[in-house]
Parts: sequence; structure tokens; C-alpha cells
Amino acid sequence: MIERVCIVGAGVIGSLFAGHLAQVSEVSVLTRRREHADALIRDGLRVSGKSERHATVRASADPAELPAPDVAIIATKATGLRDAVETLAGTYPDATMTTVLNGLGAEEIVRQHGEWPIVSAVTFMSGTRHSDTHVEYILDTETWLGPYEETPFERVQEIADTILASGLRAEALPDLRPAQWSKLIFNAAVNPVAALTGLPHDPHFASEDGPTDLGHLVHGLVDEGKAVATAAGIELHDDPWEMNVLATQRGSAHYPSMLEDVDAHRQTEIELITGSLIREAERHHVPVPLHTLLHGLVKAKEESW
Amino acid sequence: MIERVCIVGAGVIGSLFAGHLAQVSEVSVLTRRREHADALIRDGLRVSGKSERHATVRASADPAELPAPDVAIIATKATGLRDAVETLAGTYPDATMTTVLNGLGAEEIVRQHGEWPIVSAVTFMSGTRHSDTHVEYILDTETWLGPYEETPFERVQEIADTILASGLRAEALPDLRPAQWSKLIFNAAVNPVAALTGLPHDPHFASEDGPTDLGHLVHGLVDEGKAVATAAGIELHDDPWEMNVLATQRGSAHYPSMLEDVDAHRQTEIELITGSLIREAERHHVPVPLHTLLHGLVKAKEESW
Repeated sequence: MIERVCIVGAGVIGSLFAGHLAQVSEVSVLTRRREHADALIRDGLRVSGKSERHATVRASADPAELPAPDVAIIATKATGLRDAVETLAGTYPDATMTTVLNGLGAEEIVRQHGEWPIVSAVTFMSGTRHSDTHVEYILDTETWLGPYEETPFERVQEIADTILASGLRAEALPDLRPAQWSKLIFNAAVNPVAALTGLPHDPHFASEDGPTDLGHLVHGLVDEGKAVATAAGIELHDDPWEMNVLATQRGSAHYPSMLEDVDAHRQTEIELITGSLIREAERHHVPVPLHTLLHGLVKAKEESW
Repeated sequence: MIERVCIVGAGVIGSLFAGHLAQVSEVSVLTRRREHADALIRDGLRVSGKSERHATVRASADPAELPAPDVAIIATKATGLRDAVETLAGTYPDATMTTVLNGLGAEEIVRQHGEWPIVSAVTFMSGTRHSDTHVEYILDTETWLGPYEETPFERVQEIADTILASGLRAEALPDLRPAQWSKLIFNAAVNPVAALTGLPHDPHFASEDGPTDLGHLVHGLVDEGKAVATAAGIELHDDPWEMNVLATQRGSAHYPSMLEDVDAHRQTEIELITGSLIREAERHHVPVPLHTLLHGLVKAKEESW
């Protein structure tokens, strides 16, 4: 079991990790805003929904004020990653950095700032943030973890076991890239469509009954993404189209964070999701006109605010 | 000069025609809503902006209550065309029906409901509707008219001359299709992008300076549209990309009606604009993946309300 864990970034995903892991490890939370850390120290962190937790945590906006962890779980938004890693540069030299972000390339950004061992992760959990100190756990799906560069697989398993023991679902995989790519293609096909149409991820996204049904477009986006994966030599862990169909059958429609960002006129994760898919497509000379159009539309939408 | 003109549909374009033509012809206005007709009878119709007019008009929601016109100008939204033409079926047998709508195919819908001579028109005028009885004239650009089927060109010229005499700009063309298609491709490249991004038609749409600038996407949409026109044997009257560049250089950004429709959660004209381009593309076996994606996104957006 991992003794000390630092959660970097206390949005929905970071809060779900912190709230659960506090049951089995000593948890500290590194926040961007000082008020957020103060609120966590004062009120603790509450999880409702699929689990009920009330965790006492240490928290600060300055890593030097927190105990050096054995593992740091970096769960910022893609847009906040660089700032967070700059804050960590030169600290916690013995920690294993675990990145849980959408898109591709988070590990490289971490590597540019230090020599830590790195573990790659993707999570399919979701929740709703009610306040700085209260998160609702909605989809109790898995987090997958895999080694990056020379990190031993045993280390990955140890982290996965700790997450499991805390009451969340996790699995260690020898190679995470097939799962990362499955999630990337799924997100690139679903999130910008939700952000542009205002539809949550509901059965429209899977319907191909009528000739102009939205599922045809989502399928076309998935197919472009799969062509890029094939060109990059990746055998996908899950078929992104099946992920899409299954997710829309779950009952209540999931509200993708990119749609929340658009509603709140916040910068979206388009660059790390669709942007990284397009960069891989360019590297492997695969045309992705539909993803390029969505990328441009979401960027233009950001500029309209 | 045309003696009696009936304006069918008193939105922005219909009101601009009615307000000006009342200076040279006897104008009646056929509205969808009875209250709208009542307001026009009570207050008259005011035009401000590029022209100043205050016109006295006859108005009704029932064509039988209005004098039979020599010319009817059908200026409804594409979404209201079918209802309006059904109301006209069996009336005004001697009138020349002049369609001024976005997209393609309005003339066929009129033809399905009667044997009137038909004149095709497209207008580039724009304005802002301030109330049922007040419209602001913003872009004082031309209306182009051409014969449909056996309508003699002299009839087209007579209508164009009357519009000109009223203070608006107009031109009679022996074949309107090249102009209709230019406008169709322009609208299909600009309006859905505005509707999805929230951007008015501003310089973003023409910028190709950076590699991810929006102009590249608009250019790709224009190119797909031009390929369809070529396959359909149409030599365009104006290059839609140049129309786009010129329009964004006019100073104040135009707010496309499709963006207004989206803001107001109203059904858009996507079916008559992008939909008719896609139908022509299918007829001529030209792939239009980008327009198909935009069509699906705007339809999905309508379903999100």
C-alpha cells in the first residue's frame, strides 16, 4: 500500500481520488487556488453519490508546505497541466508521478520538468463538482494505469492496488497506450460534438437509424481516429464506437466536461484531445478533415467569448 | 411599373420590400400572425437606417381580405414557405409569384401549389427587425431576379424596375441560377459556422494567416460547394470565397440569421441551405463530408432545445 499520496489538482477527478484514498493513505492536496486549500483544510472533502466519504486532508497551493509523497496523482485539466508541473519542478524527487489527463502527451510535459518515475493513467470515472469541498461520484468506472519509460510494472500494480483498496475501480496494464488511444478517439468523437450542439452524451450520439442521424457523424469521426491509430501502430484496447454506444445506454446522459466548459465560456480541452489526434495524424500522414473542422469550430467558439 | 404588389411574409426582407415599394405601388402585406397585420394597419410600417420611410399598407393574415396583386413577393423564411404557399393556393391566379428565399427549391414548392408565372430572386440586403412595424435597413446591397420556366424576361425586368424605382437596388438577369448558387455556397459556408461557433460573420471567417485559422475551414466548405456547382453544370456568378472576404471587410460584422435562430432556439434554415447543397451533391455524386458534418451538427443543436 502506498503510504503518502499527493493529489495535484482538485477538480472532479482529483477530488474523487483524494476523498477515497484518504481511507487508506495519508493524502495531501495541491490546489491552484489558496482559498481552495483553505476550504479543504477547514471543511474536509465530502464525496456523495456512488460512495459516501468525508475525508480529512492536508492541502496547500505550495508543494513545499506539504509532506513529500510517495506518489503524486496529477489530475489537473489539460489546460492547467503546465502551470501545475512548473510548480512541482525541483520538488518531491522520490515521488512517482501519475498522470490522469485526457488526450496524449501529458507524460512528456511532466518529463520536461523533472526526472521522476512516471506512471500513465486514464480514468473513465465521472462526477459533478458541487463546491470546493463536495464532489458527487456519478460513474463508478475504472482507472487504468501503465508504466511510462523505465517505471517497473510492480510500481504500477502497487498504485492500482492502493486505488482499489480505497474503494475505487482500477486496473494495471503492461501497456497503457491502447487504452489511452481508445479513450482519446472516443473523447475526440464525442466531446466536441457535445460542445458544439449543446447535447449531453445521449442516445443521439449512437443512433444511425435515419439517414441524417447524428450517429453517422460520430461514426465517421471514430473511423478517422481509428485510421490514425492504425497508422501509429496502436492496436486499440476497446473499440471507441462500442464505448460510445455502451455509454449512451447507461440511462442518465453524461454531460461532457467540454460542454460544461463551453457553457461557462472557459477554455476547453480541445487542444489536448482533438489537437493531439490531429498532430498524430499529421505525423503519420493520415487525413482527418472532420476532426480538423471540429477543432476549428471549437477554437472559433472560444474566440467568440 | 407594377401597380399592385403583395408582400408575403413580413420579416426583415419582406418589410424592406413593403416599406420601399409602397412609394411606387399599392402594397398589401400577407402576414402569418393576425396581430402582426393589425399592427401594420394601425401603425404603418417604418424603415430606418439606410433609408427613412413610413409606409401605409393594407395587411391581413387571409389573402381573400386583400386586393388581388399583379406581383406577389414571397419573402418568408424557408421554414415558413410551405405554410405560406398553402394559404395562397387557389388565390391570385393572375399574379406573378416572386420567390426571395435562401437555398434552392423554393420555386418548385410554389409550383406544386398553383400555375402562376414564377420569377426567381435572391437578395443580399440585410436589416434588423426592431418590432412588427419597424425594420432597420443595414446592408443596401442588390436583389437579383431571373425568369423561372416560361416567364418572359420582360416581366422580370418590369419587377426589377419597380424595385429600383422604390429606392432599393435590383438587377434582372437572364439566368439567375449562377447567382443563386453563388449565394447558396456562400451561405452554406458561413451560416452554419456562425450558428455553431457563436461568431458573427467577422474577419475570423476570412483569415488564413495561421495554420489553424477559421478561414481555412470556410475555404474548404466553399471548395466542396464549388465542386458540386461544377458537377451540376453551373458557372458561378460570383466566387463565394471572394464574397466571404469582401463581406467581412465591410466594417461592422453581419449577424447571420441562422445564428439569430440558434440564439432564440428557433428552427434554422439548415435544411434549405446546407440540405439543398447536400441533395445536389448526392444527385451529382460529389462527396461533401464537411457540409454533411455541419448539417448534422446544426440539426443536433436544434434537437438539444
